[in-house]
Amino acid sequence: MRVRTNRGREDLRAIWMDGAVVTVIDQRELPRKFKTVDIKTCAEMAEAISDMTVRGAPTIGAAAAYGMALAWKAGEDLDKAAKAIKATRPTAHDLFYAVDLMLSKRGDDLVKAAGAYADEIVSKCKAIGEHGAPLIKGGHRILTHCNAGALATVDFGTALAPMRLAHRAGRKFFVYVDETRPRLQGAKLTAWELLNEGIDHAIIADNAAGHYMSRGEVDLAIVGADRIASNGDFANKIGTYEKAVLAKENGVPFYVAAPVSTFDFTLTSGSGIVIEDRSQDEVLLVNGRRVSPEHSKALNPAFDVTPARYVTGFITEKGMFKPGEFSSLRKVG
Amino acid sequence: MRVRTNRGREDLRAIWMDGAVVTVIDQRELPRKFKTVDIKTCAEMAEAISDMTVRGAPTIGAAAAYGMALAWKAGEDLDKAAKAIKATRPTAHDLFYAVDLMLSKRGDDLVKAAGAYADEIVSKCKAIGEHGAPLIKGGHRILTHCNAGALATVDFGTALAPMRLAHRAGRKFFVYVDETRPRLQGAKLTAWELLNEGIDHAIIADNAAGHYMSRGEVDLAIVGADRIASNGDFANKIGTYEKAVLAKENGVPFYVAAPVSTFDFTLTSGSGIVIEDRSQDEVLLVNGRRVSPEHSKALNPAFDVTPARYVTGFITEKGMFKPGEFSSLRKVG
Repeated sequence: MRVRTNRGREDLRAIWMDGAVVTVIDQRELPRKFKTVDIKTCAEMAEAISDMTVRGAPTIGAAAAYGMALAWKAGEDLDKAAKAIKATRPTAHDLFYAVDLMLSKRGDDLVKAAGAYADEIVSKCKAIGEHGAPLIKGGHRILTHCNAGALATVDFGTALAPMRLAHRAGRKFFVYVDETRPRLQGAKLTAWELLNEGIDHAIIADNAAGHYMSRGEVDLAIVGADRIASNGDFANKIGTYEKAVLAKENGVPFYVAAPVSTFDFTLTSGSGIVIEDRSQDEVLLVNGRRVSPEHSKALNPAFDVTPARYVTGFITEKGMFKPGEFSSLRKVG
Repeated sequence: MRVRTNRGREDLRAIWMDGAVVTVIDQRELPRKFKTVDIKTCAEMAEAISDMTVRGAPTIGAAAAYGMALAWKAGEDLDKAAKAIKATRPTAHDLFYAVDLMLSKRGDDLVKAAGAYADEIVSKCKAIGEHGAPLIKGGHRILTHCNAGALATVDFGTALAPMRLAHRAGRKFFVYVDETRPRLQGAKLTAWELLNEGIDHAIIADNAAGHYMSRGEVDLAIVGADRIASNGDFANKIGTYEKAVLAKENGVPFYVAAPVSTFDFTLTSGSGIVIEDRSQDEVLLVNGRRVSPEHSKALNPAFDVTPARYVTGFITEKGMFKPGEFSSLRKVG
C-alpha cells in the first residue's frame, strides 16, 4: 500500500521481515499517527498480536508465521513458541493455521517459509484487485463498509484491492466510506488507506448511505466478508446487511471481495453462522467517553448475515462468481 | 414526561411558566446531568434559544411564546422583543409562528396566551399517543430513530408518545434505540427519556437495526417527521429512509408520528424537499475529538426523504392515516 511518510511516499506492507527484524505498522496509532514498530523476538511478536499493534485476520496470520520465523532464527524451542503465539488471540483461525503450517515445515528455513506465506496472501489480494478493477469505471461513485483493506491483509486488501488497481491504472472515481459504528474502522482505517493511496473519498455516517443510493449517486458497492456459506450467504461487519438491502432496492450492484479461503463449504446457508455479541461499551462510549445515560444498556452484535440474493457477485483470486456458481471453487478451496 | 430528580420522580415539561419565571430543562447537559434553568427576562429566553439550552421545533416555539410573555409582563416593547427572539434561530419555523401569534394577541394577557400555546402542543402530542398506543402490544419490540420525544415537543413527544401511554397503561415492551449518528440524539436524548419513563430499552449502532429486523426480532417501527408532502413522502433525520426500506423488506410495520402541522400541502411529493448539509465536523469528530484522518473530508446530509410507499400509517392528533388518505387533513391542517 502507498503510505505518505516523512521520507515521502513509500510502498509498504502492514508487516514485513528484513534480516533479523520484522517491522509492522502500528495500527493502534492510526489514523492519528503513522508509526512502525521493529520486532526482534517471538515474544515481542506475541505481544504485538495480543495488544493489537497488528490486526486483521490475514495480517495476524502473517504475524504468527513471522513470529515462528524469529523463534527459529534464534534457535528457540518451536513448540514453546507456537504455544505462546496461539495464546494471544485464541479465536483467530488464520493465526492457528499459520503457526501449524510453520510447525509442519520444521527443518526448513522458516524465514523463507513465513515470507512465502505472506507473499501468498498478498498475491491473492492482488488477484482480487485485478479481477475486480474492471468493474470500476472513470467517474464511478463507490460505497464501502468497514475496513477490508491492506492493513488487514498485509497488502492491497480485499474490497479495497480493486479500487487500488483501478486508481493505479489512472481511473478517477470517488468512494463513500461508511464510518462503521461502533468501532469506526471505516472512518479510522479505510479513510487513512484511501487518503494515502490518493483516492478521492468522503466519510459518511452509516445512516447516509441509503440517502445517496436513493438519489442515484452511488454506482457500485464493494465490501469484504468474514465467512461465506455454500449458498452465498455471508457474514461481515454489522451494517453490511443494511447496505446490501438498500443497494438492491435502488438497483446498485453489490459485490463481495474475499479470497477463496473465506468460503466455508461445511455451511449450507448463513443461518448456521453464530454472531458474536461484543461489549456494550463499544456502543455506549466513543473514544473512551460515555455518550449515553449512565444506566442505559446497549446491544452490540459485531457481524450480520447477508443472504446471497442481495449479492451481484463474489470477487475472488480465482475470478468473479455469482451465488450458485461455486462448484469449481469447492475443488480449489 | 417522567423525570427522576433528587426529589424523586416528577412529571415535568421541557418548559413551563410559574408566576414570573419560566423554567426549562437544560438540554445541553443531557444525558450526563439533569438540570433546570430559571429564565426571568425575554433577553435571557433569547439566549437560551440561541445557545440551545432548549431545542426541538415545538419546544422552541413554546420558548418563543413564553419569551414574549416575559416581555409583556415586564412592560417591554413587544416589537423589539419579537425582533430579538426571531434573531436567535432564523430558520426555525415554529419560532416565527409563535412570536407572530403573540404579536397578534397584543392587548391580551400574553402569559395566558403563551400557556395556551404550549398546552395545545402538549394536547396534540398526547392525542398522538392515544391514537398510537393501541399499536403497541405487550411483549412488542419497537425500533425508533433519533429523538422525537418530550424534550423536543414540550411533553409526551411524537414517536415516543404512543410508547409513554402504552407503558402507563401497564403494557411491557422493549425499545431498540438507534444511536443516530452523527449527532447521537438517540443515544443521548431518547435513551434518557425512556430511562426516566421506566421503559425497557437498549441503544444500538444504526448499523444493527437491519440485523434485528432480519431475525424477526422487531415487531414495529415508529419515527417522527420534519415535513410531510401531500403524497405522504416525508423528510426526517438522516437514516430514517434506511430503516423504512429495511422494515418493508422484513415485513415490519413502519409508522410516522407527527402533528397535522407537519404536513406541507404545498408539496406534491418529497422531491421538492431540500436537504440541509451540515458541518463535516459532526461526522469527523465525536464529542469534540477527531476520529478520522486529518485530511479526510466528510459528507453530512442532516435529513433524508422516505417515499410514502414505505409507510404503514401516519399517527396524528386527528387519528391514523394511510398515504393517499390525507384529504380530510387538508381541511383541518
